[in-house]
Amino acid sequence: MRVLGIDCGSEYTGFGVVEETAERKLVCHANGAIKLKSGTPMAAKLEKIFADLTAIIAQHQPEIVALEDVFYAVNVKSALKLGQVRGVAMLAASSSGLQVAEYSPLSIKSAVVGYGRADKHQVQQMVTRLLGLASPPEPTDASDALAIAICHIHTAATNNRYAAVSR
Amino acid sequence: MRVLGIDCGSEYTGFGVVEETAERKLVCHANGAIKLKSGTPMAAKLEKIFADLTAIIAQHQPEIVALEDVFYAVNVKSALKLGQVRGVAMLAASSSGLQVAEYSPLSIKSAVVGYGRADKHQVQQMVTRLLGLASPPEPTDASDALAIAICHIHTAATNNRYAAVSR
Repeated sequence: MRVLGIDCGSEYTGFGVVEETAERKLVCHANGAIKLKSGTPMAAKLEKIFADLTAIIAQHQPEIVALEDVFYAVNVKSALKLGQVRGVAMLAASSSGLQVAEYSPLSIKSAVVGYGRADKHQVQQMVTRLLGLASPPEPTDASDALAIAICHIHTAATNNRYAAVSR
Repeated sequence: MRVLGIDCGSEYTGFGVVEETAERKLVCHANGAIKLKSGTPMAAKLEKIFADLTAIIAQHQPEIVALEDVFYAVNVKSALKLGQVRGVAMLAASSSGLQVAEYSPLSIKSAVVGYGRADKHQVQQMVTRLLGLASPPEPTDASDALAIAICHIHTAATNNRYAAVSR
């Protein structure tokens, strides 16, 4: 299974493509962050996010897109900005024919660090270890996106085991 | 000048195309609302909004898109949902090569009703009168979208007069 994790943000939008091999090894195919220049009109920023994510999907051919479900500690103004980026990220997935899975920050941190209140640097370190990377993915938006992808892989694996048991 | 006004919402997204003729008469070319079925996945809803708005732009050829600037009385959860729709509406404008103008609810109501605290039905009645429509545009999302377009036309006219005076 190959998953594109996206960590939406109004300045940096992180992305990470993770595959679980047949031997259940996790491999990182790509990661990074789309930087939005401050001062650029919002519509132009959204166009860049849509174009970049569509290109990443075309290049790395993920089977599904995973996002962080964010109905949490942000104010109305930042929620609106973040929502705009999130809407365009979902559209990029959907218009490339992919489904979108959503995970709470708690499930993402629990799946990667084993602790729901882990900070960004703990997430970064565990992601580096789990994927066997030579150096930590930078910026932390990139490691957060990889964590979201890993969370989906772990959750899907657990669901499959449950399904196998209940058959 | 021909303007597409969009009133973004997580259930109904209103649209209205208004033109100011050379004789300074306001003409309504189209209005309505894109209904999003509850229960449909958000990504599919966003795909429908993007497709419908892109088709409306292609059919009615506006020169600019006007949106309501919403950094006001909504909670975080509804702000995120609304932001998603708004992001996709801005992308539809931008990817069709159009600029996006934004107006506060206060300026929109002031431009149309002459009173910043007017309610939806007062807006609907004034829009009906200003555009010489046989019956009020329904739902109110459609009349709100027409009001946003009229606000842009009035504002642009005022700005042009200022520019003419200061030359």
